[in-house]
Amino acid sequence: MKLEIMPVKEGDVIQLVGIKHKYYFVKLIAGKVLQTHKGIIEHDEIIGKPWGSRVKSHLGNPFYVFQPSIADMLQDIPRNTQIMYPKDIGYIMLRMGIEYGQHVVEAGTGSGAFTSALALRVGDQGKVYSYEQRPDAQNQARKNLNKFGLLDRVDLKSRDIADGFDEEGVDALFLDVKTPYDYISQVRGALKIGGYFGAILPTTNQVIRLIDMLRRYDFAFIEVVETSLRYYKPEPERFRPVDRMVAHTGFLLFARPLDRDSMINADKNIDQDLDVVV
Amino acid sequence: MKLEIMPVKEGDVIQLVGIKHKYYFVKLIAGKVLQTHKGIIEHDEIIGKPWGSRVKSHLGNPFYVFQPSIADMLQDIPRNTQIMYPKDIGYIMLRMGIEYGQHVVEAGTGSGAFTSALALRVGDQGKVYSYEQRPDAQNQARKNLNKFGLLDRVDLKSRDIADGFDEEGVDALFLDVKTPYDYISQVRGALKIGGYFGAILPTTNQVIRLIDMLRRYDFAFIEVVETSLRYYKPEPERFRPVDRMVAHTGFLLFARPLDRDSMINADKNIDQDLDVVV
Amino acid sequence: MKLEIMPVKEGDVIQLVGIKHKYYFVKLIAGKVLQTHKGIIEHDEIIGKPWGSRVKSHLGNPFYVFQPSIADMLQDIPRNTQIMYPKDIGYIMLRMGIEYGQHVVEAGTGSGAFTSALALRVGDQGKVYSYEQRPDAQNQARKNLNKFGLLDRVDLKSRDIADGFDEEGVDALFLDVKTPYDYISQVRGALKIGGYFGAILPTTNQVIRLIDMLRRYDFAFIEVVETSLRYYKPEPERFRPVDRMVAHTGFLLFARPLDRDSMINADKNIDQDLDVVV
Amino acid sequence: MKLEIMPVKEGDVIQLVGIKHKYYFVKLIAGKVLQTHKGIIEHDEIIGKPWGSRVKSHLGNPFYVFQPSIADMLQDIPRNTQIMYPKDIGYIMLRMGIEYGQHVVEAGTGSGAFTSALALRVGDQGKVYSYEQRPDAQNQARKNLNKFGLLDRVDLKSRDIADGFDEEGVDALFLDVKTPYDYISQVRGALKIGGYFGAILPTTNQVIRLIDMLRRYDFAFIEVVETSLRYYKPEPERFRPVDRMVAHTGFLLFARPLDRDSMINADKNIDQDLDVVV
Repeated sequence: MKLEIMPVKEGDVIQLVGIKHKYYFVKLIAGKVLQTHKGIIEHDEIIGKPWGSRVKSHLGNPFYVFQPSIADMLQDIPRNTQIMYPKDIGYIMLRMGIEYGQHVVEAGTGSGAFTSALALRVGDQGKVYSYEQRPDAQNQARKNLNKFGLLDRVDLKSRDIADGFDEEGVDALFLDVKTPYDYISQVRGALKIGGYFGAILPTTNQVIRLIDMLRRYDFAFIEVVETSLRYYKPEPERFRPVDRMVAHTGFLLFARPLDRDSMINADKNIDQDLDVVV
Repeated sequence: MKLEIMPVKEGDVIQLVGIKHKYYFVKLIAGKVLQTHKGIIEHDEIIGKPWGSRVKSHLGNPFYVFQPSIADMLQDIPRNTQIMYPKDIGYIMLRMGIEYGQHVVEAGTGSGAFTSALALRVGDQGKVYSYEQRPDAQNQARKNLNKFGLLDRVDLKSRDIADGFDEEGVDALFLDVKTPYDYISQVRGALKIGGYFGAILPTTNQVIRLIDMLRRYDFAFIEVVETSLRYYKPEPERFRPVDRMVAHTGFLLFARPLDRDSMINADKNIDQDLDVVV
Repeated sequence: MKLEIMPVKEGDVIQLVGIKHKYYFVKLIAGKVLQTHKGIIEHDEIIGKPWGSRVKSHLGNPFYVFQPSIADMLQDIPRNTQIMYPKDIGYIMLRMGIEYGQHVVEAGTGSGAFTSALALRVGDQGKVYSYEQRPDAQNQARKNLNKFGLLDRVDLKSRDIADGFDEEGVDALFLDVKTPYDYISQVRGALKIGGYFGAILPTTNQVIRLIDMLRRYDFAFIEVVETSLRYYKPEPERFRPVDRMVAHTGFLLFARPLDRDSMINADKNIDQDLDVVV
Repeated sequence: MKLEIMPVKEGDVIQLVGIKHKYYFVKLIAGKVLQTHKGIIEHDEIIGKPWGSRVKSHLGNPFYVFQPSIADMLQDIPRNTQIMYPKDIGYIMLRMGIEYGQHVVEAGTGSGAFTSALALRVGDQGKVYSYEQRPDAQNQARKNLNKFGLLDRVDLKSRDIADGFDEEGVDALFLDVKTPYDYISQVRGALKIGGYFGAILPTTNQVIRLIDMLRRYDFAFIEVVETSLRYYKPEPERFRPVDRMVAHTGFLLFARPLDRDSMINADKNIDQDLDVVV
């Protein structure tokens, strides 16, 4: 069965791959041109062609129109702040069950990298509510979301989450803030019973405080993990790991709020449950 | 803004959480009952209630109706074969850009764990074409997909992929077979230019052969990684890593097919690109 | 140059390797016999032969007389307590500069595994002072040290280290106790200026408290690390990591006491120094 | 018991620690002076003082005379080539049972880092035979060994090991060369039965070839491991791993030669033995 390869539309973000695999991420806008190291390409040359097509620059050099994944696009995102890594984003979204159509709250927005991944995932039927107090970070995130064509799926808010979230009953809520343990009451207010709470934290001290607070607020299924990714040199004659790697991006913490009455008699020693989770 | 918590429908898979966080994964069918360690619960009691609701067994014990993530559900999947781990599934789907509405080929199906994750992700507008030659594995996968309500999004095929895939122009193609290097010509036939190829392989010998073959067949952006997950005991007074961990599930390999002409002049030494990818 | 292979002496611990590489660790005593799965061997048959020799059991089965390393011997050590792993022992001894002729303090003794490694290293010109309050642990350690022929290099003490160590001016001091931060004043009393302090600790909470205390007591060059070891299956056709690994044995902490006056003006932010250490 | 702190002698390598923990490694020679960032210090000021003493520069700034470990000294070693890391050296020496009084062969010498560690360990009763074909590397190694006062324990040889080693019956033999699998016959000639063979290799391809060759040459107890070291920031308020780490230095391979007749009936599937080794 031959699937119809969809045409590239105005507004799409493409990965334009040239000689020696050098590439550009570009949002297509009718009438615009792209300056490459190998000549100029008009966006109109690309719009309407199927993904995977070959186009040529005005100097005759070939380029290929690739459909990028969000993992590819995040490499290229302009940022003011530390952004989350694909190794963490992939696991977080799977662990928290973030899928098409969901409503998800996030704080802080930062440069919008994780926000973009969330917005892509929840699709046109879902919504991301993203809180950020620093105006410059929010502006950067807005630009990035707009570049990826995802801005309409995100509600960017510049509120202090100490005052609570506007939402109630969301499917998942993620905190990437310095003192997440200060907002657990607010988290409970926003997240549905059995929904997924997640956080990323650089230090063990923060994790310790957050676990303690989550237990007080009747969260269960608490899981703390670190992900890591080890790259190998893709050389068949000299196959080996690369020399250096990222050792730490943050501890990931997940938990789910129970109904407050339900904790009576509940066993708090759930460590052994982790064995199944592996 | 108070979001409407959706009601649980017949056919949904729920995670029913009881006292001490003991839980059951159940597919809801009108008229059926569930035997728990704390009494019997009728499915009809649950159908129509909002997610997060509390129900009681005939002995009066409370249970909570949680909406599970695919990572949760895969813990419980009946299997004949080694299944893929969430740590790998999360990264693979992010790396290969698998999102709502896509068409994806997979071989082999195995017990259908990764198939389930793919089917959930591509949604009701996408499709998974999954090849498996062992009838018992395919039967197991069919049962699992049916249990999760995902069977209609998957086309289960019992063909030898040496004869080629039926599909052309798919967005992504994943191989979890013993000798993936034997099918790269077939992969090229099925995958669109710039689409995502992925594979999981236990041994370095297999990886070496696969890299070599991908280079011959004009694949670019070859990336080989291992993911790992380190669990911590969530005890605030004694916060520490767990004693043992999974050391190896498989090497993950990703690549993208170029147009065959495009490799002329292409630099095959793309190792340094990896630095950006991290 | 042909080196003379030394003969095996009474009192030596040998690794007796039989068919299919099955082996026994035995301390040789004149007149004794060893029961193996392949027949009986008299110790007198072995004493006086060069290392590497072949001997036969009374059933005619061959055995080889191997000289074991301490890492080999520790596999076989009878224990009441968790013992330290070779991965940690090797790094600790290198990091703390433990060499021939030194005087080293250790607490607690435990089953004597690390004590044995220290005693072997400091040799017949050095000394290990090892503190332990649990009589059963100390007895076990005594037996193990005696078996390895190392007891005369160790001074086993059953004192509470809260009362201070008997020694002053030792080269290195290692703590494997629950609350090492309670004994740092005592450590300073025993260790020479610039000597090496080390500790192994399972939890982050303990590490945090110990770092804090070491800073107060004018220790410098504080280093916290975890070692890990990943085993591979030594199969040339299917070379790959083993499935499971030890994820955590303990955090290792190292530091060196400065003269108390010297800390004035000292920069406590020495993190960047770690870069050189890698 | 107050141990006598030994005096520093001419020829000793000291670690001279100044304000803010800045330090210098110096070999003491009567009549020489050291230029520091905080003034000049005469070696004669230091010689004869006990380890740990305080001395002052001509500007009145204090410095402390620390006794460095080999791990410390290797940080500072001038090198032409990649040197081995303490994480590997510590484990290799423990695993191969390298202790006081032994005779050890090594090839290649490189900059002499591992040679220095070996020479320190085998002491004045042992000997290291170190082969290197590149004259510049050997010269560098000679300077380093001389600086550490270890040159008299090392026999530096500039021979091609393809012609065999001069020694027979050594306790341990370590290869850090590109094609160790080409010299296994020569290794057998030099190493005593049951002695320890070790190698470090960057790529999986090399490891695969070496395992294969060792099996052909009747080596047993083959073990392949990678060590790793994860550093933590020693900050009690923000305790966390450092951001980046060394991902790969090399695979370590260990094995022991059996008597050639002994392999008859020997089980080559010794993987399960590894479980005990952990």
